[in-house]
Amino acid sequence: MTIQIASVPNGTVTSAKGFSAGAVFAGIKTPGTDKRDIGLLVSDKPCNVAGTFTQNSIISPSASLTRDRVGISKKVKAVVANSGCANCAVGDQGLVDAKETTDIAALHLGTTSEETLVASTGVIGVELPMALMREYIPKINVTEDGGGEFAKAILTTDKRSKEIAVSFEVDGITHTVGGVSKGSGMIHPNMATMLAFTTTDANVDPAFLQETLSNAVKLSFNQIDVDGDQSTNDTVILMANGAAEGALLKGGNDASDAFAQAVLAVCKHLAIEIARDGEGATKLIEVTVDGAHSDDDALKASRACAASLLVKTAVYGRDPNWGRIFMAVGKSGINLDESKINCYVNDIQIVADGKGISYNVQSVVSALGDDEVRLRVNLNVGKGSGQAWGCDLTEEYVVFNSAYTT
Amino acid sequence: MTIQIASVPNGTVTSAKGFSAGAVFAGIKTPGTDKRDIGLLVSDKPCNVAGTFTQNSIISPSASLTRDRVGISKKVKAVVANSGCANCAVGDQGLVDAKETTDIAALHLGTTSEETLVASTGVIGVELPMALMREYIPKINVTEDGGGEFAKAILTTDKRSKEIAVSFEVDGITHTVGGVSKGSGMIHPNMATMLAFTTTDANVDPAFLQETLSNAVKLSFNQIDVDGDQSTNDTVILMANGAAEGALLKGGNDASDAFAQAVLAVCKHLAIEIARDGEGATKLIEVTVDGAHSDDDALKASRACAASLLVKTAVYGRDPNWGRIFMAVGKSGINLDESKINCYVNDIQIVADGKGISYNVQSVVSALGDDEVRLRVNLNVGKGSGQAWGCDLTEEYVVFNSAYTT
Repeated sequence: MTIQIASVPNGTVTSAKGFSAGAVFAGIKTPGTDKRDIGLLVSDKPCNVAGTFTQNSIISPSASLTRDRVGISKKVKAVVANSGCANCAVGDQGLVDAKETTDIAALHLGTTSEETLVASTGVIGVELPMALMREYIPKINVTEDGGGEFAKAILTTDKRSKEIAVSFEVDGITHTVGGVSKGSGMIHPNMATMLAFTTTDANVDPAFLQETLSNAVKLSFNQIDVDGDQSTNDTVILMANGAAEGALLKGGNDASDAFAQAVLAVCKHLAIEIARDGEGATKLIEVTVDGAHSDDDALKASRACAASLLVKTAVYGRDPNWGRIFMAVGKSGINLDESKINCYVNDIQIVADGKGISYNVQSVVSALGDDEVRLRVNLNVGKGSGQAWGCDLTEEYVVFNSAYTT
Repeated sequence: MTIQIASVPNGTVTSAKGFSAGAVFAGIKTPGTDKRDIGLLVSDKPCNVAGTFTQNSIISPSASLTRDRVGISKKVKAVVANSGCANCAVGDQGLVDAKETTDIAALHLGTTSEETLVASTGVIGVELPMALMREYIPKINVTEDGGGEFAKAILTTDKRSKEIAVSFEVDGITHTVGGVSKGSGMIHPNMATMLAFTTTDANVDPAFLQETLSNAVKLSFNQIDVDGDQSTNDTVILMANGAAEGALLKGGNDASDAFAQAVLAVCKHLAIEIARDGEGATKLIEVTVDGAHSDDDALKASRACAASLLVKTAVYGRDPNWGRIFMAVGKSGINLDESKINCYVNDIQIVADGKGISYNVQSVVSALGDDEVRLRVNLNVGKGSGQAWGCDLTEEYVVFNSAYTT
């Protein structure tokens, strides 16, 4: 029996029971309509917590402090997040400021620093403006419908908020998994992404919680690319407070499977929205590789394709230049047999048995003009499959990243 | 005693004794002033030969045939190269055409197919126009000063030819090493680059020849980046015909060291010229990492920096955004201590002990406006050093690769 996962209308990170959030504009980033730059997310009850973090050798103290506070035997209650400043490459002051930020948030929320996580995103090499943190964090009002406010607080160059919640029922009890994320440049995560916070009211064994998150991140955030660059602040957090009062989920049954499915659905949605909203992007590129020797091969090849500048620019220019797709799949170094490869653009086949075939050019050019372009490569050498998501590369990415300090 | 290496004025691939070359315009690529698209390079005497080739899982039959014909116990005399068509992803016809191309060239040059190498560069997925090959290869007139013609014949989107020769003297005998190469997109080589042909009249032991080339490629072609993409056709060849009639070079003496230095100088020049002439590029970026735990770490970190889109766009925008340099060095995953890092732009220090310092912004912005921008990162944790070269990323790269099939 498979348990159905349902989408929650207007779902967000506070859709799961017992979570509240809020945000404020403190002036850390440039002002604008409806902008927020510090957010708080808090659970009524202590949460089991899982996390994945950047593998960059240079890591923001905000991310490393949070990593230290996330562990299988640890409980957390709150997250304080800011945008506009990455709190990275600022010497010893970075850890001092990260800790003080959690102190301020914990005092305001009536919890402890140890139970408070912190995340920062923005310019690298600039110290956190602590005077603003001290003044504005205590002004944040957290409410059960404050998820949208929190989602705004973590945005930098993103054009829109990224939020979702899904639910599933076990023994008459509704369980919810919600989440928010932000992109939108320096995106080629490795076991993490810029920032994503996910919550659930399910009652989840800590080891199973981490296993579930790690697996979901592997298939979602670790499969997206905007520009090949890996941030120093990448953080994905999953907090489980058990507020739904359901049975303990620890893997090996339908309810645990449904939970893992729900977490994966939330992570995939949030990751895809980051790719779609990449700096300068006009469209989402979804790459599916199947028929690979293994799922890992397919994941590697699909991501190499989604990350290729030549594929990104070809899609932007509506050019069905499948030679670039071949190049990108090949540069992943997986085993393949060129003479067995088929390629499709939005289901229109353009390559059969490794060679270009006749197709209606207008149909393909038109498909490449869609907001979502689906490239599919069938390697026909095995049963492995995988997907990755990227966006097109446009002049706007260059203008954006050459004209502004981001 | 170190043997001095001297630059050869107007040096090219035929500067070494006993090499001739020529080219023709056959209409494989779009016509234009002074364009050539098929070239021949030939040695009077049989050559020992070394080569490095693309690691892409999809390889052009032109490259794989050449790889098969290059070996420690094998001799070669000629190379036929074409631009405008990569002879890649065309099914079984690709190998048939690659072989026939060498047959035609060998017949014309009075050598054998087995002693003739082939290289192709251009659009992937299109068959070699064999009617043109059959008609035009026999029209090519090879001469001792034909290196410049050959250099033109391998260009695609390159804006200029890339040629060099250097010489050194052993026991009163002048030895010369010459070379040509082409870029200029799909450049992030792995043990090879797009196309480079180097020649020498030195008498070189085959195993030492391969060792010398592999080492030079590691420090030159494998350290450049234009767009992170790895071609299906990357090929670097070194032919040694012994025409200088010098003593056998097999490593372990000053003459062999001078030869290795000369090969490295030629490869570095050709590689740097590819980076400088990257698609849409306005400037060369040289990244030096020193003070690393090992040379390999420094090579890795310098290349990650030269390949980062955010570093490339920052340099284009003259933005001394060293946070992006930190991010890029860190994403290489090497061991470092953030609090020990110093950074320099054209010798002006902008980071000390991992933190930004006061500097004259106008001086740095002005330095970033130079045709060559030198970024230096001293990690201060060891004695390893390495360099890499890239170019800035401009709107023109995007326009170029979205508006045309290349």
